[in-house]
Amino acid sequence: MASRIGTHFSVTIFGQSHSAGIGCVVEGIPAGKRIDLDELQAFLARRAPSGMPWSTSRKESDVPEFLGGLVDGVTCGAPLAAVIRNADARSSDYEALRRTPRPGHADYVAEVKFGGAQDVAGGGHFSGRLTAPLCIAGGIAKQLLAEQGVFVGAHLARAACVADAAWPLQGIGPEDVSAPGRKPFPVIDDACGAAMQDAIAAARAQGDSVGGVVECAAVGLPVGIGEPLFDGLENAVARAVFGIPAVKGVEFGRGFAAADMHGSQHNDPYRMDAGAPAFESNNAGGILGGISTGEPLIVRAAFKPTSSIFIEQHSVDLKDGRDVDLALEGRHDPCVAVRAVPVVEAACAVAVYDLMLEARLDR
Amino acid sequence: MASRIGTHFSVTIFGQSHSAGIGCVVEGIPAGKRIDLDELQAFLARRAPSGMPWSTSRKESDVPEFLGGLVDGVTCGAPLAAVIRNADARSSDYEALRRTPRPGHADYVAEVKFGGAQDVAGGGHFSGRLTAPLCIAGGIAKQLLAEQGVFVGAHLARAACVADAAWPLQGIGPEDVSAPGRKPFPVIDDACGAAMQDAIAAARAQGDSVGGVVECAAVGLPVGIGEPLFDGLENAVARAVFGIPAVKGVEFGRGFAAADMHGSQHNDPYRMDAGAPAFESNNAGGILGGISTGEPLIVRAAFKPTSSIFIEQHSVDLKDGRDVDLALEGRHDPCVAVRAVPVVEAACAVAVYDLMLEARLDR
Amino acid sequence: MASRIGTHFSVTIFGQSHSAGIGCVVEGIPAGKRIDLDELQAFLARRAPSGMPWSTSRKESDVPEFLGGLVDGVTCGAPLAAVIRNADARSSDYEALRRTPRPGHADYVAEVKFGGAQDVAGGGHFSGRLTAPLCIAGGIAKQLLAEQGVFVGAHLARAACVADAAWPLQGIGPEDVSAPGRKPFPVIDDACGAAMQDAIAAARAQGDSVGGVVECAAVGLPVGIGEPLFDGLENAVARAVFGIPAVKGVEFGRGFAAADMHGSQHNDPYRMDAGAPAFESNNAGGILGGISTGEPLIVRAAFKPTSSIFIEQHSVDLKDGRDVDLALEGRHDPCVAVRAVPVVEAACAVAVYDLMLEARLDR
Amino acid sequence: MASRIGTHFSVTIFGQSHSAGIGCVVEGIPAGKRIDLDELQAFLARRAPSGMPWSTSRKESDVPEFLGGLVDGVTCGAPLAAVIRNADARSSDYEALRRTPRPGHADYVAEVKFGGAQDVAGGGHFSGRLTAPLCIAGGIAKQLLAEQGVFVGAHLARAACVADAAWPLQGIGPEDVSAPGRKPFPVIDDACGAAMQDAIAAARAQGDSVGGVVECAAVGLPVGIGEPLFDGLENAVARAVFGIPAVKGVEFGRGFAAADMHGSQHNDPYRMDAGAPAFESNNAGGILGGISTGEPLIVRAAFKPTSSIFIEQHSVDLKDGRDVDLALEGRHDPCVAVRAVPVVEAACAVAVYDLMLEARLDR
Repeated sequence: MASRIGTHFSVTIFGQSHSAGIGCVVEGIPAGKRIDLDELQAFLARRAPSGMPWSTSRKESDVPEFLGGLVDGVTCGAPLAAVIRNADARSSDYEALRRTPRPGHADYVAEVKFGGAQDVAGGGHFSGRLTAPLCIAGGIAKQLLAEQGVFVGAHLARAACVADAAWPLQGIGPEDVSAPGRKPFPVIDDACGAAMQDAIAAARAQGDSVGGVVECAAVGLPVGIGEPLFDGLENAVARAVFGIPAVKGVEFGRGFAAADMHGSQHNDPYRMDAGAPAFESNNAGGILGGISTGEPLIVRAAFKPTSSIFIEQHSVDLKDGRDVDLALEGRHDPCVAVRAVPVVEAACAVAVYDLMLEARLDR
Repeated sequence: MASRIGTHFSVTIFGQSHSAGIGCVVEGIPAGKRIDLDELQAFLARRAPSGMPWSTSRKESDVPEFLGGLVDGVTCGAPLAAVIRNADARSSDYEALRRTPRPGHADYVAEVKFGGAQDVAGGGHFSGRLTAPLCIAGGIAKQLLAEQGVFVGAHLARAACVADAAWPLQGIGPEDVSAPGRKPFPVIDDACGAAMQDAIAAARAQGDSVGGVVECAAVGLPVGIGEPLFDGLENAVARAVFGIPAVKGVEFGRGFAAADMHGSQHNDPYRMDAGAPAFESNNAGGILGGISTGEPLIVRAAFKPTSSIFIEQHSVDLKDGRDVDLALEGRHDPCVAVRAVPVVEAACAVAVYDLMLEARLDR
Repeated sequence: MASRIGTHFSVTIFGQSHSAGIGCVVEGIPAGKRIDLDELQAFLARRAPSGMPWSTSRKESDVPEFLGGLVDGVTCGAPLAAVIRNADARSSDYEALRRTPRPGHADYVAEVKFGGAQDVAGGGHFSGRLTAPLCIAGGIAKQLLAEQGVFVGAHLARAACVADAAWPLQGIGPEDVSAPGRKPFPVIDDACGAAMQDAIAAARAQGDSVGGVVECAAVGLPVGIGEPLFDGLENAVARAVFGIPAVKGVEFGRGFAAADMHGSQHNDPYRMDAGAPAFESNNAGGILGGISTGEPLIVRAAFKPTSSIFIEQHSVDLKDGRDVDLALEGRHDPCVAVRAVPVVEAACAVAVYDLMLEARLDR
Repeated sequence: MASRIGTHFSVTIFGQSHSAGIGCVVEGIPAGKRIDLDELQAFLARRAPSGMPWSTSRKESDVPEFLGGLVDGVTCGAPLAAVIRNADARSSDYEALRRTPRPGHADYVAEVKFGGAQDVAGGGHFSGRLTAPLCIAGGIAKQLLAEQGVFVGAHLARAACVADAAWPLQGIGPEDVSAPGRKPFPVIDDACGAAMQDAIAAARAQGDSVGGVVECAAVGLPVGIGEPLFDGLENAVARAVFGIPAVKGVEFGRGFAAADMHGSQHNDPYRMDAGAPAFESNNAGGILGGISTGEPLIVRAAFKPTSSIFIEQHSVDLKDGRDVDLALEGRHDPCVAVRAVPVVEAACAVAVYDLMLEARLDR
């Protein structure tokens, strides 16, 4: 079916890990918007493998070529199309994936769903590589949002059971949300970050992997963005974020902790402030009835540990119908949540910007 | 915008709490399917206020009239339209909601978004009443799924900090998932249920409210349902479930707990079983790469505590621009998660059935 | 599948001729718009059977009840839902339609498509009755367009081979397009109208039927409405108009006559007029590249002769697999194009208003 | 907005005439389908300028590169993405188009709609070049349809007021519909074709252009494809065909001629034939109630004369606000309908195949 999200800022993602290229088509960007391509490239670079110990040593070039939609860096009203060339040669070694599914990956379910026709090399259309075009679209969405005073940023809130410092639910601004993304290791508190890196390294030394949580915030949202029922901010952001591989949970504001609170604690009361209504707290994470309140939108995504580990695992030979043991090789991130930080920003930005456009039709 | 979800089994919900009626239009149901209207009514009754201590004492009739799409209880290929009459008379008392927003509700954001034109009575289109038509569509989806061997059920996994017994991630079947829904209080373990009711009652006695978690499972899914990227099972189910008022978090399988696990623990290995590939565990909650694995689909929704409490709260008078104190009256559930159990089933069923139809186009 | 059209002003139609009711759900109407319900009723009345010789003598009540979306006649931002009760009792006489398909109707194709589950009474979901809810949505769209200075009207351009006077392609205004609709017989030139009525009556006396052409115009459109490729004004209007039963052709501007013209004749040159660019002609019918030019949008729809005639026709008995002769009874319009005039306006208005909303996202 | 059509076989077109490339993304193709790339290239070649007198002498290479969705020529279940490189260097000469709109083109309306940000070079996103990616998608759709026994073909039914021989409405098969496309000049009767070419040449010698009509047929359709109301075959095919530049009218079966017929003439009666129901005629053009009857689907598209002519025309200088005279240069087709023949096939195939997939969900 469609690998597409959004109605007004509509993003379609194509490509497989070892096809000629991966990319996106973004329809609906208003004409006349200047896109800062250097800023976009810097954003894409945050996602690319870095050679650092918490990352894979694979090389991936993420420099997109724009096939359409931009003229001298300005949107022209036609669909924006961007493609990133895949460098890796298609290898026949991947055929083993048809026979021996890797635990935690989609190999088996894709084999059944597509009857063996799926592209298995490098994970095909399920590959984490496909987060690169999502970041192209999301990076553009971030710029378009910033133009309207809305800033999206994220940090690695938790990794390998080590927690980062937290953002308060109120009072954070553009600088707060952007700061972690400027660091090599995207955290608020560098000491926490160092502890995380140690824990990740320890797992890596074992040939194992670890999970994490990415927290993302959008600040500066006006009041009134989002729709009731199925096109609210939670619905849209969750749908986008669950499109990132390895995400197993999404929560807003207090999230699952809200389930253990009393209404008298969780409700966000109102008081006048400088002549305008203001919230005394923001347990709602910036969203009521699916609609933005003007307070920071706070969302958290839970990432399972990287499925590709080097420890031997049980698998089966689908062709022969017998048990086999599988030991993977190659270069894999020990904690995908680290490089997923900009991807969560991208997903959030895509969803929010689509609803910002929608809101022009409210009255 | 659209209060609609789904591509093939497409559900549009209309109505406000005090409009003439609320209802849904469901497009795309294959023709020739018999709907058991008694079973549907029993499902709707699970959602309706029951007069029990954990529920509001409001009376709501949830008997739908089918305006189209069914002939003698069999789908005829035309859109199915159902409406439930709203009995409550429109009261002018609700005008106060325009001036004095209730904390935790959408009053304020709707006032800004719609410029005062929104229907405020009883919460308008944001009202929990709108979960009734979602249950009509979901109840039908449940029957259509059951016809194909897929059974959806849910239980109140947590309420007022008291936990129910848990479903194991593997080995549960139709009877397991259906059993809680047959009880007045929808839990697995009645002793836990009794403790929950006590805790809810305690909060109610304080004029306060509590939150909870609903866990829902779909068993009997074939392998291969769902699409990569943005139309996977997690995306679709999350989008539907976040359409239920008060939901602040959604997780699958191990959910947020997966973030604290190692890959060697979280991965679900394969072994042959009776000549077919089988999973040794189901930490993935039945979903890999957005696609069903055949194992139980397990999802959890976090419900914030009911926003309507009787304790005095800070609010503002939007017209006069000054602080006021607000004390609500009326009849409100002290824990919305209880009555939300069938609604979560409905949302899950709507999303899953849509993808079951989608899968007919795979090859 | 979906009986739905439009992205922003999204109209879903439900019901069958003999179901409890027929109606529509319209999502996306901006909040705060006042709908003149008397004007809407007058528009619906134009479509209803009138008892006049060119019309069926069936009685149809077209008074909608609004279930949601309006509060005191003002749109409230929630989906608008309207239903019209079907008065006719479901008759078992219609079962004959399952066995003996009426030539020109969808009886046979529906029997095959839906395997016999389709609602046959009165034509089911294929019935011309379903143009009533389209007129509810279209009547509302007309009012919303008029609020912005865009006026939609239509006349019976041709019936039973008799032509009405024509609108010039330029220089017509709101009064021109609205005038025919105020007459009992919707033509520009009443003498032509009288000749049409005679010709229709002659066919009716023979137990036969005739076809016609409805011409519709939208004046006052600003420049820039519509999108290139598949969401242009022609695409949207054609998709809507072909949703009216019996339409077999749609053309814009010079239409099929343009195929026989030279570029030097058909092109619409530019000249300055009162300091602004103006068109010297309007062969394009108000649309270039799918986008409005500001000139009158002119569209024509060809209606085949009513399929229900009283002359004996060849049919088959599907159950027994043998030839039979079919003689219909009942009350049928001898020329559906007459009562279709407001329906074409409705379809055009729905399509145009959706694109008017879309255009708010251009820059 | 979206340059996209289709729900199941969903085609998105991107690129501008002078952007780096033009292309399409096609989502929803079932996995495991082999695409004959040579056959596709031959189909694309039918559209490309040929250097013949009825065609422009511009050179266009239409060899697509597949970025995703195909593995060794077999669909893999991921979106198919194809791009054609644009060879022409972006020229600054096109800036004149911003100031001096060409009559019959979208220059002026695009300038207003996009505020000057639109890509003007070569017509930008409005260029006839964009029919190349439509032909990629349509060529693939044709092959997928042929695999199921449905064959789509077209001929130039009329050009410069000269008519080709006509297809009968019944009794045509795959060979009939494919034959014209194999000829350099796509007609049924070569003598008629020669007369057309003379008439086109005569206009060209005058620096003028002519219009035409393309007739397209789809044979071998099963009964039951298409939906009532807005997703019927007429709606879908018309929406696609009006996406081809220069189309001003679309009709099915008898089309506008049906408006002048009696019901007794136009209805298609039934008789048994070899034990199955059969149609005695096919005035309906293969469609009843939006649904295929099994008879040939016959559609006609009216093409206006090419807007680019060499005769001097009135225009304006938008910047200075004064009248100017415009004389175009360059290489332009004197009759776009000729090269549009395969494009109409492509549009028809895209629409029909989408509904063929839809029909899998009927029961």
